[in-house]
Amino acid sequence: MIISMRPHATKQEVEHVCERIREFGFRVHSIEGEERVVIGVVGVGGDVTACLESLEATPGVERAVRISAPYKFVSKEFRKERTVIKVGRAEIGGDEFVTMAGPCSVENEKQIMETAEAVAKAGAKILRGGAFKPRTSPYDFQGMEGDGLKLLAKAREATGLAVITEVMTDRDVDLVAEYADIMQVGARNMQNFALLKALGRCQRPVMLKRGLSSTIKELLMSAEYIVAHGNSQVMLCERGIRTFETATRNTCDIAAVPVLNELTHLPVILDPSHATGKRSLVPALARAGVAVGADGMIVEVHPCPEKAVSDGAQSLTIEGFREMMQQLDGYIRLWKRERVAEFAAAL
Amino acid sequence: MIISMRPHATKQEVEHVCERIREFGFRVHSIEGEERVVIGVVGVGGDVTACLESLEATPGVERAVRISAPYKFVSKEFRKERTVIKVGRAEIGGDEFVTMAGPCSVENEKQIMETAEAVAKAGAKILRGGAFKPRTSPYDFQGMEGDGLKLLAKAREATGLAVITEVMTDRDVDLVAEYADIMQVGARNMQNFALLKALGRCQRPVMLKRGLSSTIKELLMSAEYIVAHGNSQVMLCERGIRTFETATRNTCDIAAVPVLNELTHLPVILDPSHATGKRSLVPALARAGVAVGADGMIVEVHPCPEKAVSDGAQSLTIEGFREMMQQLDGYIRLWKRERVAEFAAAL
Amino acid sequence: MIISMRPHATKQEVEHVCERIREFGFRVHSIEGEERVVIGVVGVGGDVTACLESLEATPGVERAVRISAPYKFVSKEFRKERTVIKVGRAEIGGDEFVTMAGPCSVENEKQIMETAEAVAKAGAKILRGGAFKPRTSPYDFQGMEGDGLKLLAKAREATGLAVITEVMTDRDVDLVAEYADIMQVGARNMQNFALLKALGRCQRPVMLKRGLSSTIKELLMSAEYIVAHGNSQVMLCERGIRTFETATRNTCDIAAVPVLNELTHLPVILDPSHATGKRSLVPALARAGVAVGADGMIVEVHPCPEKAVSDGAQSLTIEGFREMMQQLDGYIRLWKRERVAEFAAAL
Amino acid sequence: MIISMRPHATKQEVEHVCERIREFGFRVHSIEGEERVVIGVVGVGGDVTACLESLEATPGVERAVRISAPYKFVSKEFRKERTVIKVGRAEIGGDEFVTMAGPCSVENEKQIMETAEAVAKAGAKILRGGAFKPRTSPYDFQGMEGDGLKLLAKAREATGLAVITEVMTDRDVDLVAEYADIMQVGARNMQNFALLKALGRCQRPVMLKRGLSSTIKELLMSAEYIVAHGNSQVMLCERGIRTFETATRNTCDIAAVPVLNELTHLPVILDPSHATGKRSLVPALARAGVAVGADGMIVEVHPCPEKAVSDGAQSLTIEGFREMMQQLDGYIRLWKRERVAEFAAAL
Repeated sequence: MIISMRPHATKQEVEHVCERIREFGFRVHSIEGEERVVIGVVGVGGDVTACLESLEATPGVERAVRISAPYKFVSKEFRKERTVIKVGRAEIGGDEFVTMAGPCSVENEKQIMETAEAVAKAGAKILRGGAFKPRTSPYDFQGMEGDGLKLLAKAREATGLAVITEVMTDRDVDLVAEYADIMQVGARNMQNFALLKALGRCQRPVMLKRGLSSTIKELLMSAEYIVAHGNSQVMLCERGIRTFETATRNTCDIAAVPVLNELTHLPVILDPSHATGKRSLVPALARAGVAVGADGMIVEVHPCPEKAVSDGAQSLTIEGFREMMQQLDGYIRLWKRERVAEFAAAL
Repeated sequence: MIISMRPHATKQEVEHVCERIREFGFRVHSIEGEERVVIGVVGVGGDVTACLESLEATPGVERAVRISAPYKFVSKEFRKERTVIKVGRAEIGGDEFVTMAGPCSVENEKQIMETAEAVAKAGAKILRGGAFKPRTSPYDFQGMEGDGLKLLAKAREATGLAVITEVMTDRDVDLVAEYADIMQVGARNMQNFALLKALGRCQRPVMLKRGLSSTIKELLMSAEYIVAHGNSQVMLCERGIRTFETATRNTCDIAAVPVLNELTHLPVILDPSHATGKRSLVPALARAGVAVGADGMIVEVHPCPEKAVSDGAQSLTIEGFREMMQQLDGYIRLWKRERVAEFAAAL
Repeated sequence: MIISMRPHATKQEVEHVCERIREFGFRVHSIEGEERVVIGVVGVGGDVTACLESLEATPGVERAVRISAPYKFVSKEFRKERTVIKVGRAEIGGDEFVTMAGPCSVENEKQIMETAEAVAKAGAKILRGGAFKPRTSPYDFQGMEGDGLKLLAKAREATGLAVITEVMTDRDVDLVAEYADIMQVGARNMQNFALLKALGRCQRPVMLKRGLSSTIKELLMSAEYIVAHGNSQVMLCERGIRTFETATRNTCDIAAVPVLNELTHLPVILDPSHATGKRSLVPALARAGVAVGADGMIVEVHPCPEKAVSDGAQSLTIEGFREMMQQLDGYIRLWKRERVAEFAAAL
Repeated sequence: MIISMRPHATKQEVEHVCERIREFGFRVHSIEGEERVVIGVVGVGGDVTACLESLEATPGVERAVRISAPYKFVSKEFRKERTVIKVGRAEIGGDEFVTMAGPCSVENEKQIMETAEAVAKAGAKILRGGAFKPRTSPYDFQGMEGDGLKLLAKAREATGLAVITEVMTDRDVDLVAEYADIMQVGARNMQNFALLKALGRCQRPVMLKRGLSSTIKELLMSAEYIVAHGNSQVMLCERGIRTFETATRNTCDIAAVPVLNELTHLPVILDPSHATGKRSLVPALARAGVAVGADGMIVEVHPCPEKAVSDGAQSLTIEGFREMMQQLDGYIRLWKRERVAEFAAAL
């Protein structure tokens, strides 16, 4: 921590701050500049956040800045090698770019079975489909819930695809975990801490979507919640953030992928569907995801987007998905070459 | 709804869109412009959102825009008179500006009792204090939970103040409702739909805080969730939104107060503490809240901010709170004069 | 400056950084933490920004943070007393709340004369009106230019109001200065540095509007440009920033007013018209401006808003302006009481 | 245009609106919904923006929405084939991915010559380098100005690279045009309309950088200014927008590239240096730019970034640039295959 005092802070104020720092179990390095005093806080064992918050509230202090990262288990300092999460036939974080695909919502048996078979054939390894749907309006379709989960399980059996689906409340964690291979936390729940804790106590891998206005640091802190409560099988998902631009549904923060790769060992997935909200833009964003080194992507596909109960505008048709996968092939080869080289270099 | 077709949409595409609209139970008014066809969708009974989403996904459509508001019960169209919520000795939405005050977190008996007595004396009608705390880091203080609730009840008994406290998951709604007079939904849970539904089934008034990056429309939709599920005692809270500016913790969207007053009959509360994150700015923002016509405010106060376990930097001292309340007096008089005139005019 | 090194920075890297700091003429205070080395940079005379930028680019450095403010002349450290700018009969920054009012664009003689007389009668001291108009589209009305300036001068003669009008390029500074009492820099030009430098060499007071996405610090840096080039008569204007919210044209960052009052001695003006973009919201925001301690406001008024060539939706009618001024009266009295007390205390 | 009236607008209000629309030279199509009247405005020849602004200010109107695009010459409706801009040996918008590279600022002869030779050898076709520098602080290095331009010309002579450099005010357009092959408009000047008009009258190609908080529509409107004033050789540049995220200097709106490709025939360049602000992230973003179909990129390169007078942290070393270009090779091959196929299909 670095504490900068106000330019005219009194000697007593500086001394009081130093005392408080020592009370929290840290050591003090004071630097007298021309204009003000700056205090370096050194040591381990103390509660950094508590100390920081206290000092910010203390008279004479202008700013208290944390230097060390506030997360631990998810950081690259803690673990250098990539975390690889095995789900069904896929290894997320390994040397294959993993595609998750399927409809926004599970709507009926025909729809989910048809989509599952088609995406499996086109190269997807994991089936997405919402059974519990977070909807802005109470009057919109809220998902098939338990029945939807059963249909997903049926589709898994038929196709061998693993299943990812959303869980919206800690109350439903056990139920969803019975059917899902990956538990998805939606963007609006990224800081639903009760849910994060419950997922930490669960045995299933989790995909944590970045909140609409969450920083990369907050995303890592939410992942830290899950890991700190016992579950280290976490992957992160960039799905676009909210900005002033309305030409796309969200603004895809594509740089978040390499930034996360510098900060964490957890796998990173790109969601080009929510990131753009528009079918015609999905293939370009999918290529970008491969190019920046994401570990996989999650894409919305529907047999008839205009009849989809949700997110039709951003869903690819089955034919559109097939074409995109073919076009991605060259990019994925380049991706694989680099990843294999990285793993070889690590040996 | 207004559907604008792409400039070169074919006749078949236009016809297909019209057909789809009729399938949803609406009537069609087609307008042929020089460049493109625009279709007006008229009628009631159909599912507007579903129709809109479907059309956005249909070939030849450029944009589908909703004209009617997506919320109903919370709108001023539905109910013209202000909703007044009685809690203890306070009437929120009536002709008194209501102040809620207290510490960020309940920390111990001495702290909460001392603060409660002081804020009551200075003019607050409602005591705030967190027992369940949403914290960005899993390593930060998570609240006294059940014990905190009991201390709040004790403070209520001693002072006559009503109590507002946060509930973080649908699982805890019954427990919190046992102790609280107002159930608070935090900004990070504004779209925790499982929680909103549970609060709709609960008998306690609810204060719904605006999400960090939620639009005013989304805030109203979340309120609509609670009302549509059975609970019409909802108040809204502006607490600052997330923007690029870092000089303050959040950016107080002060215009949200008069905008909400145009759109809804629900009371609106301002939170000048979270809106700024800095003690010295709280009184100015509190004055602004009164000036724009908020129904009340919620303010953080702590006997010794630098020893607060959370949010010390934005907490007023007891003395600071007292001074602010005195200084606000003239502004509140102007507020009351206008409110009383409004009620008189409505008779 | 504080330089924090990467956790595994080598000894050579640390030494190289220290050397670089000394080359820039500063002294080094190195702190060895458990995880990393943090270096405090102390001293005056060196070029802080250049040093900072260099260190950020140097191997082993994680982050370089500036502690001292990057502006000087505009800061409260430099000058404690408020800057008072005399323009016509008004003293901006003194003990009167100053109102500037008038149409968005000067359209013709009748319009500007009628508006000038009406706003003067209702209490405005300064007439606003654009002769050079920055318009998003090349096909929109671009202003009456020179003829508009002459009409403004005529209205000044007839009413005694001082005149504020926009200058869009350094090429026009001399021309506009011939007619205007205050030179306005529009939001889109806040970082038009050629214009800022030219205004620094001009003798007229300047009102600098905050850019749509400019931080408060950047606003102060732009003011510093003008002052550093020779003109200390600068006032700042908060006119709303760009965020994700679309219910208002911009988001009024009302807290910017007290934040600026803590950081600078320059007067601060609120523009409730651009901050909201909607006539019905202007009076509430004007009250908020008074309540938070702005030194004045600038408001759009038009005799017939629906016939205005620009910004009609946010222009008050003459009758609406008159009503707002009456309603503001009580708030301005409270404002004056506080300002007079402040000046008395300073004696 | 579509005008939606307020739910309880009177018959007279509706009629008045229709009359106003006809005064502007348009035809009226009125649709009576259950809740409100919606009016479609049809026809050509009238002034759409003026009509829209007028109606927004007219009593009874809730919202006025433009349907047609506000730009014309830059739109794909106006011209289907890509605009190809020939500069030196490069064709921007054609079937080669064009790389522009060089230092942020021209600092001295040795620096610019060394960099120019190195980037030419590594595959760049265009040399970047700032002679006039827009700097947030008046105390920072403002560029070598005329001397810098001469050094750029010298580097062009030595290497055959074309030169791109920034022009900051309309006053300097003639001077810069004497030396530059491409005139760059910086992000802070994207809506400096005096500058845009002057560039419209100039014969040199222009690269227009997107403003920090400008929408894609505004970027196109600024391009329209240049084209409407006579210069059709315009290319656009995505360089990151300002959001709440601080992990990167700006947030690269990568989707802007395919969005622009849908809307305009003008070439689109990506700037991965400003988009991230961090050297280590540049190569990943460059790959993303190729993958989404940008026509080229502009990258900062410096022989010794830690001694750069500006932007050192985001500048690649010469060695780093060379490596990046090699690694990009596979991606550029895929890019070329698709571009050539597109051109072949268009024949």
